[in-house]
Amino acid sequence: MTELSRRHLLAGTALAAAGAAGFALPQVATAAAPQSGQQGPGFYRFKVGDYEVTAVNDGTWYRKLDASFVRNAELPDVQKALEAAFLPTDVVPIPFTTLLINTGSKLVALDTGTGGVLTGMAPQSGTYAANLAAAGIDPKTVDAIYISHFHPDHINGIKGKDGGLFFPNASINVPEPEWAFWMDDGNMSRAPEAAQGSFKNARRVFDDIAGKVQRFAPGKEVEPGIMSIAAHGHTPGHTAFSVHSGNKSFLYIADATNNPWLFVRNPTWQAIFDADGNKAAETRKMLLDRAAADKMLTHGYHWPFPASGYITRTASGYELVPKMWSPTL
Amino acid sequence: MTELSRRHLLAGTALAAAGAAGFALPQVATAAAPQSGQQGPGFYRFKVGDYEVTAVNDGTWYRKLDASFVRNAELPDVQKALEAAFLPTDVVPIPFTTLLINTGSKLVALDTGTGGVLTGMAPQSGTYAANLAAAGIDPKTVDAIYISHFHPDHINGIKGKDGGLFFPNASINVPEPEWAFWMDDGNMSRAPEAAQGSFKNARRVFDDIAGKVQRFAPGKEVEPGIMSIAAHGHTPGHTAFSVHSGNKSFLYIADATNNPWLFVRNPTWQAIFDADGNKAAETRKMLLDRAAADKMLTHGYHWPFPASGYITRTASGYELVPKMWSPTL
Repeated sequence: MTELSRRHLLAGTALAAAGAAGFALPQVATAAAPQSGQQGPGFYRFKVGDYEVTAVNDGTWYRKLDASFVRNAELPDVQKALEAAFLPTDVVPIPFTTLLINTGSKLVALDTGTGGVLTGMAPQSGTYAANLAAAGIDPKTVDAIYISHFHPDHINGIKGKDGGLFFPNASINVPEPEWAFWMDDGNMSRAPEAAQGSFKNARRVFDDIAGKVQRFAPGKEVEPGIMSIAAHGHTPGHTAFSVHSGNKSFLYIADATNNPWLFVRNPTWQAIFDADGNKAAETRKMLLDRAAADKMLTHGYHWPFPASGYITRTASGYELVPKMWSPTL
Repeated sequence: MTELSRRHLLAGTALAAAGAAGFALPQVATAAAPQSGQQGPGFYRFKVGDYEVTAVNDGTWYRKLDASFVRNAELPDVQKALEAAFLPTDVVPIPFTTLLINTGSKLVALDTGTGGVLTGMAPQSGTYAANLAAAGIDPKTVDAIYISHFHPDHINGIKGKDGGLFFPNASINVPEPEWAFWMDDGNMSRAPEAAQGSFKNARRVFDDIAGKVQRFAPGKEVEPGIMSIAAHGHTPGHTAFSVHSGNKSFLYIADATNNPWLFVRNPTWQAIFDADGNKAAETRKMLLDRAAADKMLTHGYHWPFPASGYITRTASGYELVPKMWSPTL
């Protein structure tokens, strides 16, 4: 057996440089196929009992990492956590992955993505519409939208870029305490500067469709087999959902964690986006404990696409075990 | 905060049953969108320096698990290892994921998949051609094929189902020691019954195209920036490859491990497919050590799609850290 020595790898690198220089003088007669430059479609399907779930990616926000990102951890510790996942330490990747549940009689969207209007901040976001089309889902066939909370990356997709309803035939359902918090002018006037954008954005999305919006109290079944779960803390009305069909269950924790290498592994860490950091951490623990205890397939909005997996307990927190990709449902 | 109690989840299950009963009498006016039943395309792209890599999935073989699968481990320990990955304990999922490297001047295939002819044994295999088409790659544009070893799931794709060359314009390159072993009639006559199929299959694939087949001695650069690495043990001539462009490197270990939750975590375990179990384990350790030491992005043919990740050392073996899915290259 020949040893794979460092010399071989270094030699390879040197030769690669030579190869690159060879671009100008290709040595093959066949025409080179052009590189694609394009990623594959960002959707993934699986069954929960009789229900068919489609996870649809809306891109990733690579947010600059600074000391403010995790309120109660030192920057070098956060960087170490990213390094352990072989990620760069100057940005935090924050993917967006929504869900559509086809119960057989209804097509239900859980959150709606960015609507393509956050590309100024997150140039690699806004791929939802293309991925939904690739998945063969016509927005006209969506019967109901359920919103976890009012942050822009969850509600902006209710409207298309032109301001019209992206899902024209869908009922729009939002958590009552979320509506009460964000649509209250007193709360807006008292909110810090950093939160003003979200208040204004909620008004942009909801003001002219307020009559269509239905509010639900988290904690009840919202559609057959789909339960809403009060999971407040990240925002005052943040809501999770569980899906039950046959003897199978599935848990959508929305933003109860952000990037899992930071907040699943270190559940006491509080992200800058958590309105009530202590309550958010308490909710995170409650949901991850349940996922671990019941071995429930779980989906995090900001987990790496396709964003579903299982949770195990560790000495210091939890570990996400991604669901293995399957070629069939 | 409302508690997510077991009662809620059980209630959900009961309600889901009620929902399922409702199939016969849908309560909504809108027509239900049909469930798709189809998974998304199985291809994934990333860059290695200036090179563009496309991982193309050829499905998964769900092999019945029995005591013979890991030669030197007890069945309950193997089942425990699968359980830790939230996998069933009666089958081992063995995905097939090939690679295509577009160097800018050449399109190089590393292994070719099953050719769709193993569906009797593995009904969820044979998706390579469809996934290659989804990736926008015309087999006619492939300039060169490099084979890691002669097992059917790696060489059968050289020919299509009709027996013709699937990549009509590609040179066909195989490891010299692999050819010497499998194409030798003496070896075939001395081989155990279980290996006869692979010997016969190698003849089926290569006999009528022998004049086209080029043999290379592992340990050298085979294309600009693509190195072959002797990695014998799994088969007598099993060969890995590394890819180097700019200051980036990428390691393709082919079958140096099978299912990672078994053989990355427990590198001394020997799979039934390893011709020389001790040598295979030694090679596995050599390659995984190198991947860990150099923090190289690494691809295993039988790792979960998209089958690339990083390797860290643990107390008892290694851990695969899957590469995070990215919406762009």
